[in-house]
Amino acid sequence: MSTDLPQFKDVVAAHERIRKFVHRTPVLTSSGINEIFSSSLFFKCENFQKVGAFKFRGATNAILSLPEEDAQKGVGTHSSGNHAAALALAARMQGIQAHIVMPRTAPEIKKKAVRGYGGIITWCEPTLESREATMQEVVDRTGVTFVPSYDHFNIICGQGTAAKELIEEAGELDIVMGPVGGGGLISGTAISTKGMLPSARVIAIEPAGADDAYRSFTSREFIPSVNPQTIADGLLTSLGKLTFRVILDKVDDIVTVSEEAIVAAMRMIWERMKIVVEPSGAVPLAAIIENKIDVAGKRVGLILSGGNLDLAKLPFK
Amino acid sequence: MSTDLPQFKDVVAAHERIRKFVHRTPVLTSSGINEIFSSSLFFKCENFQKVGAFKFRGATNAILSLPEEDAQKGVGTHSSGNHAAALALAARMQGIQAHIVMPRTAPEIKKKAVRGYGGIITWCEPTLESREATMQEVVDRTGVTFVPSYDHFNIICGQGTAAKELIEEAGELDIVMGPVGGGGLISGTAISTKGMLPSARVIAIEPAGADDAYRSFTSREFIPSVNPQTIADGLLTSLGKLTFRVILDKVDDIVTVSEEAIVAAMRMIWERMKIVVEPSGAVPLAAIIENKIDVAGKRVGLILSGGNLDLAKLPFK
Repeated sequence: MSTDLPQFKDVVAAHERIRKFVHRTPVLTSSGINEIFSSSLFFKCENFQKVGAFKFRGATNAILSLPEEDAQKGVGTHSSGNHAAALALAARMQGIQAHIVMPRTAPEIKKKAVRGYGGIITWCEPTLESREATMQEVVDRTGVTFVPSYDHFNIICGQGTAAKELIEEAGELDIVMGPVGGGGLISGTAISTKGMLPSARVIAIEPAGADDAYRSFTSREFIPSVNPQTIADGLLTSLGKLTFRVILDKVDDIVTVSEEAIVAAMRMIWERMKIVVEPSGAVPLAAIIENKIDVAGKRVGLILSGGNLDLAKLPFK
Repeated sequence: MSTDLPQFKDVVAAHERIRKFVHRTPVLTSSGINEIFSSSLFFKCENFQKVGAFKFRGATNAILSLPEEDAQKGVGTHSSGNHAAALALAARMQGIQAHIVMPRTAPEIKKKAVRGYGGIITWCEPTLESREATMQEVVDRTGVTFVPSYDHFNIICGQGTAAKELIEEAGELDIVMGPVGGGGLISGTAISTKGMLPSARVIAIEPAGADDAYRSFTSREFIPSVNPQTIADGLLTSLGKLTFRVILDKVDDIVTVSEEAIVAAMRMIWERMKIVVEPSGAVPLAAIIENKIDVAGKRVGLILSGGNLDLAKLPFK
């Protein structure tokens, strides 16, 4: 793995690599929402991606970038979220094995998804130490390659293909926005945007209750996440070392949003666009609703990162 | 208005008429759902139609079919559902006035939708007598043309354009399914299907708790709906005189589904396809879930009729 920062040419190469295996998701617009904000919003619908989230792009790219010999031994990760399901399906589609380390306490629906995609689950305790130790044990025992969920050159390049497709379809944009958690998606988004539309601004949006990226970006010092609280459960993780470097290099601004705005954005997307988006995916629109970004008269791209959530626990009242 | 039954050529003419004004909604497929049922299902997503339901097609066709002189005087209807919003928006888009008679007890969200589209609301009491009397009073006073919500030649032809687009996109189909309430959608669907794919079967699906169409179809005698009970609130109405004739002529079968199956179908569509569909729109898939129709190995088209519902009152547990 190169430790240089990924460049747009690397995203282009990733796109060639994964194109046959990922959905080219639609870019949707809503005249009702555009009217409300006097702007043209373009939503890249990664909720329609395989496994219901952009994570499938990075996982597929990481697997296809492995030397054949390593690939045959399989891949592994520790995750209880979308990356686990994405890696399991991406592995199955390439005919290789995926080992997923998950805490016993993970939601039943997540376990089911991983099993449904043919992933082999190894249980661990719900602590980072146990996850990492169990992962290492699995790697030693099986010879699989560990594929982290965001802080990885090939993962970032894979995630960047979503913004590449968005810009190919929407054309000129003044602003491109995405949520930031670990930073894989926003790093890839920034690389593609600056590569294709050098004068467009890239803005990362983060829940105020999990604002380590905002604080790291503002202070230009890596500040890990401590006890983050947000409904946007995909954005609880700390930035990675590599993603932080890309963000410092290529993201123009990071703004934070309230929990109320995230729920209002979810509701607006569900009601007006008739699509199911998870809280993390609604975070960019939340920044527009909360007036954190001036979009009047502008053409704005938003990455809707995914659509996986428990329908029995929705926040609408 | 012709009292002859509408023919496929009338749907073709309607399509030419409304094409510029309606969304050509996508036809979505889900490899996960196809796997579960060992078949190829094609979902025509009228939840993405303007106002969130197929009703916009019929309303637009009815307005565009009016003689210029009548059109200038405006249109009116009594409805508290999707047809009211559809007629209001369709009228506004043609630069004419829509008068909507609504019971005072209608949900606030429906009133807001009609007002948002520029419709003029006249209140009535929540009885059919009051609705009809108030409508007549509005017609006498303003000279608007009454546009009923389903039992009308031009409404049926407009609704038939959804199945026409579905078949244009999906190609050969063995079965085409739609929900049946008043019968406007299934009538148009049957006309288009028999016109384009003469050997395909057309199956109407109805909630068991509102099975007047099933009983009418089976006995071949018009049996009105009495005290229907179903979560699929778009399907509470009785068949119309004209729609019943079309159904007897062109629909191959009507089957009923349980409330549990409707909720299970909604859940499957929301979870797997990441789109918001209202209970009525999930009714066709419910028949497949309940094994009422043998779809194994078949290519099946389903009309997802709409996506309007109260997010604070979802049936998921």
